[in-house]
Amino acid sequence: MPSQPTKELQTFPNPAPDRDYEIAFDCPEFTCLCPLTGQPDFARFKITYVPDQGCIELKSLKLYLWAYRNEGAFHEKVTNTIADDIIKAIQPRKLTVVGDWFVRGGIGTIVTVTHEKK
Amino acid sequence: MPSQPTKELQTFPNPAPDRDYEIAFDCPEFTCLCPLTGQPDFARFKITYVPDQGCIELKSLKLYLWAYRNEGAFHEKVTNTIADDIIKAIQPRKLTVVGDWFVRGGIGTIVTVTHEKK
Amino acid sequence: MPSQPTKELQTFPNPAPDRDYEIAFDCPEFTCLCPLTGQPDFARFKITYVPDQGCIELKSLKLYLWAYRNEGAFHEKVTNTIADDIIKAIQPRKLTVVGDWFVRGGIGTIVTVTHEKK
Amino acid sequence: MPSQPTKELQTFPNPAPDRDYEIAFDCPEFTCLCPLTGQPDFARFKITYVPDQGCIELKSLKLYLWAYRNEGAFHEKVTNTIADDIIKAIQPRKLTVVGDWFVRGGIGTIVTVTHEKK
Amino acid sequence: MPSQPTKELQTFPNPAPDRDYEIAFDCPEFTCLCPLTGQPDFARFKITYVPDQGCIELKSLKLYLWAYRNEGAFHEKVTNTIADDIIKAIQPRKLTVVGDWFVRGGIGTIVTVTHEKK
Amino acid sequence: MPSQPTKELQTFPNPAPDRDYEIAFDCPEFTCLCPLTGQPDFARFKITYVPDQGCIELKSLKLYLWAYRNEGAFHEKVTNTIADDIIKAIQPRKLTVVGDWFVRGGIGTIVTVTHEKK
Amino acid sequence: MPSQPTKELQTFPNPAPDRDYEIAFDCPEFTCLCPLTGQPDFARFKITYVPDQGCIELKSLKLYLWAYRNEGAFHEKVTNTIADDIIKAIQPRKLTVVGDWFVRGGIGTIVTVTHEKK
Amino acid sequence: MPSQPTKELQTFPNPAPDRDYEIAFDCPEFTCLCPLTGQPDFARFKITYVPDQGCIELKSLKLYLWAYRNEGAFHEKVTNTIADDIIKAIQPRKLTVVGDWFVRGGIGTIVTVTHEKK
Amino acid sequence: MPSQPTKELQTFPNPAPDRDYEIAFDCPEFTCLCPLTGQPDFARFKITYVPDQGCIELKSLKLYLWAYRNEGAFHEKVTNTIADDIIKAIQPRKLTVVGDWFVRGGIGTIVTVTHEKK
Amino acid sequence: MPSQPTKELQTFPNPAPDRDYEIAFDCPEFTCLCPLTGQPDFARFKITYVPDQGCIELKSLKLYLWAYRNEGAFHEKVTNTIADDIIKAIQPRKLTVVGDWFVRGGIGTIVTVTHEKK
Repeated sequence: MPSQPTKELQTFPNPAPDRDYEIAFDCPEFTCLCPLTGQPDFARFKITYVPDQGCIELKSLKLYLWAYRNEGAFHEKVTNTIADDIIKAIQPRKLTVVGDWFVRGGIGTIVTVTHEKK
Repeated sequence: MPSQPTKELQTFPNPAPDRDYEIAFDCPEFTCLCPLTGQPDFARFKITYVPDQGCIELKSLKLYLWAYRNEGAFHEKVTNTIADDIIKAIQPRKLTVVGDWFVRGGIGTIVTVTHEKK
Repeated sequence: MPSQPTKELQTFPNPAPDRDYEIAFDCPEFTCLCPLTGQPDFARFKITYVPDQGCIELKSLKLYLWAYRNEGAFHEKVTNTIADDIIKAIQPRKLTVVGDWFVRGGIGTIVTVTHEKK
Repeated sequence: MPSQPTKELQTFPNPAPDRDYEIAFDCPEFTCLCPLTGQPDFARFKITYVPDQGCIELKSLKLYLWAYRNEGAFHEKVTNTIADDIIKAIQPRKLTVVGDWFVRGGIGTIVTVTHEKK
Repeated sequence: MPSQPTKELQTFPNPAPDRDYEIAFDCPEFTCLCPLTGQPDFARFKITYVPDQGCIELKSLKLYLWAYRNEGAFHEKVTNTIADDIIKAIQPRKLTVVGDWFVRGGIGTIVTVTHEKK
Repeated sequence: MPSQPTKELQTFPNPAPDRDYEIAFDCPEFTCLCPLTGQPDFARFKITYVPDQGCIELKSLKLYLWAYRNEGAFHEKVTNTIADDIIKAIQPRKLTVVGDWFVRGGIGTIVTVTHEKK
Repeated sequence: MPSQPTKELQTFPNPAPDRDYEIAFDCPEFTCLCPLTGQPDFARFKITYVPDQGCIELKSLKLYLWAYRNEGAFHEKVTNTIADDIIKAIQPRKLTVVGDWFVRGGIGTIVTVTHEKK
Repeated sequence: MPSQPTKELQTFPNPAPDRDYEIAFDCPEFTCLCPLTGQPDFARFKITYVPDQGCIELKSLKLYLWAYRNEGAFHEKVTNTIADDIIKAIQPRKLTVVGDWFVRGGIGTIVTVTHEKK
Repeated sequence: MPSQPTKELQTFPNPAPDRDYEIAFDCPEFTCLCPLTGQPDFARFKITYVPDQGCIELKSLKLYLWAYRNEGAFHEKVTNTIADDIIKAIQPRKLTVVGDWFVRGGIGTIVTVTHEKK
Repeated sequence: MPSQPTKELQTFPNPAPDRDYEIAFDCPEFTCLCPLTGQPDFARFKITYVPDQGCIELKSLKLYLWAYRNEGAFHEKVTNTIADDIIKAIQPRKLTVVGDWFVRGGIGTIVTVTHEKK
């Protein structure tokens, strides 16, 4: 059965948990729907984190982002939600999620969410 | 009622039919599905034409490209189909459709279809 | 009735008020008049803020910037005024307004206003 | 009295009429209104011509482009009109007018009008 | 069983054989061995063709390029061989193969092979 | 009477003296003479300051830079002198003057002077 | 006998051990195998360090990176392993290893490992 | 005595007169005066020619361009004059002179003069 | 014995003499001496040719370019000489030699020699 | 007598010793020899310093860098030596010397030496 979109992020154990290091994903293929008009929105996401015990599995991230394809999602809200879901899945030591949204009304919007584990 | 995706391209009369001139659209927001796996594909389309009697209405082009969102479409086939639909709608004197598809299997693909009215 | 320019910025509740995160708008479509000569001036504005309780609504920002179209405005003054209006509308935790003005007298001018909530 | 916008293009005699040579203007400061919504549109114009007996005076070109500021103008139509006005003013041996319009509906539009004297 | 490298290019029928159009592949992931020293060489290949009856299947191209990984191959020779293999597989109306080889001895080498069907 | 070069910088009152904000000028049109050979030197100047009570008037800055056209001036000395003259004129809270000088003897030179009000 | 790949990094004495200074290597020619599928992966590595008593010999670094050519290696793991091997070989005062991996599943991955000597 | 500006272009014999080949000069350091206002103008000149019997001596070109420093010169006129002077000095087989003038009135101007020996 | 500079270009048989194809070398490491002052000159050479029976061996090209290191050479002359030596060595069907010389007297010089076999 | 290469750096008194400011030289024309093979190496040097009592004279820097032309010099060693020579000549308050060496063995090397006066 071919892959399906899913909000379940898969993880694997951090191969170097004794060290702080950074993993960055550049995801130019994101689309969702505008909650007000139902029209498509597009964005490029950049996700950067310092893993603690777990890492995000790459294919699972692809399926996770795919899962927004038919959902209504405001720019500010969905960028925070993606950050929340990653925090929930792997409790990273640090996290930055950048959503770079395409032009609407002549204006481009970039939302940047950062998180640090206490 | 909000706008809906549609394969019907709207047109308007060419305001300068006595002259050959060029209209180019840069459309970075295109997505469809892979016919084999059902997974999303993304592309940036550039459409350039010399109008004859009619021009493509901009908003209608947006709705037209949106209409591929849930369709399965091979890279080579869909680029030709978009060219065919524009030819059918306005019989342009010249037309170039470029589909610049995102990386799959480590390889990027650009399909370029050109047409000249006889 | 179609949209009208207005100095009234619309806002909506911050969907993630418990977290400091950043929203950035890139606004390449700004024009006003030179107060001395009445001739048009052009600028690109970049507005970046950390929301507190409220966020700026995107369409309203477009109408707000439009409202300067027929006003006389000095480079330094108007950049500060835009910052003041955003502070008044949403009391952001942090704010940066950058006005990148087109060349006059062979010289380009960039005005950068920053603000931090006490 | 300060300068005023005007559709009257000023000209001066070509200093080298025995030779075909090219003059190109890069005009990033153009704005007009959308005839349907009344909202501002923005474009960057590039005007390139081979003069015959007359040349376009630079300051007069600035005032000419300014004169569109409060007019409704479709992308395709206005680019042709600017070409027509230049042809009328100086009958150039060759002319290219490129209007590069800012993104609307997620799509950028470039209109290119060329003309050659018979 | 996972995919294996193979010199067999897979093809599929051209969906628009009545029209000359262009398909371009950008393949940054190519490596082979230097026939003299056995050391690795790297290149970026760009393959552009006008299909006749058949098209190259994308995944098969990936496996084809992979098949050079453990072969000795001179820059000039292998670029010609890749062109020959594509010609043999699909007899394209036109073909260009560009091999952009990484710096050796302080010098970068680009080999460009073009072919046109008689 | 047309404008004349002058070392007198004109100023106007800071419209927002209660706030630290930054004004940056990009001045690509600077030329002076080499004090040793009398030959022309060229530079691009970038001047950035945080105003206190006064701001530099843009046209006056143009005339000020023009005033160096026929003066002999060493790279290091003139960059400091420009900074000194701005400090004297408006006592800015902060100031950076960057002189980016064109290649001489195969070497480009950038001189950067910074100043902070005590 | 020609050079062979080897995991043994060669070193030479730091010519300026009394000073902290930085050596950076830009290595665009890295390839290994995906441990799950056996298919090739490609990356560009950037290695930056402050030497203590020893420096990495350049040719030896080339052979070291070559040694991964036929090994299975996860992105996160191998970037850490390269850092570990450099630390073991020369105990640098500071070290950063950046692995910039080519697109897989539409997503690019950059892994950045930093280390500081205690 | 140090070098002086001069309109006299020095030449030397073409070392390869049996072959058509091209010599291109990139001259970013040009300034003259506006004939109307007396204010400085700046341009970057690119001069490309196919020599016949003579070539332009590089230092002499520098002194030639310097000689415009205190002259009034319209954009279109001076670009043609420079072409004329080069034609007079060396009768090149082909010549292109491009004057890329800095922004005035919000508009940049590029004048391109080409010449071919009959 | 280590490699020595030599004006003798080594060649090898063209592996595809039945086809016109292009080989391009990008050589950023060229230096010679100014015949007038004895001071070093630097250039980047780009050499592009369509081979006939023979090809230029890469390492030999490196040694050939090295051989100019201590020779006096005028820009125009040496670019022609390099073309002549390549023509003599392999009689290419087509050849372009571009010498892009670093700035002298504020002016950059690019010499482009092309040759076609009769 | 024409200029000769020399390791003696000439200096002149700092025209603004009461202020910390920065002077940066961009030197793209550096070549020396590999101590192991005798073959040429090339680099671009960037030298940035805060002067104390003395400044480096520009022409003398050119002659200084020229003096390495026929010397064997390891990347790491020579970058440190250039820093040492500048420190000895002018005892700058701060100094950074960056040597950006061309690709060898497929790897580029950048050596960065920083110094601060105690």
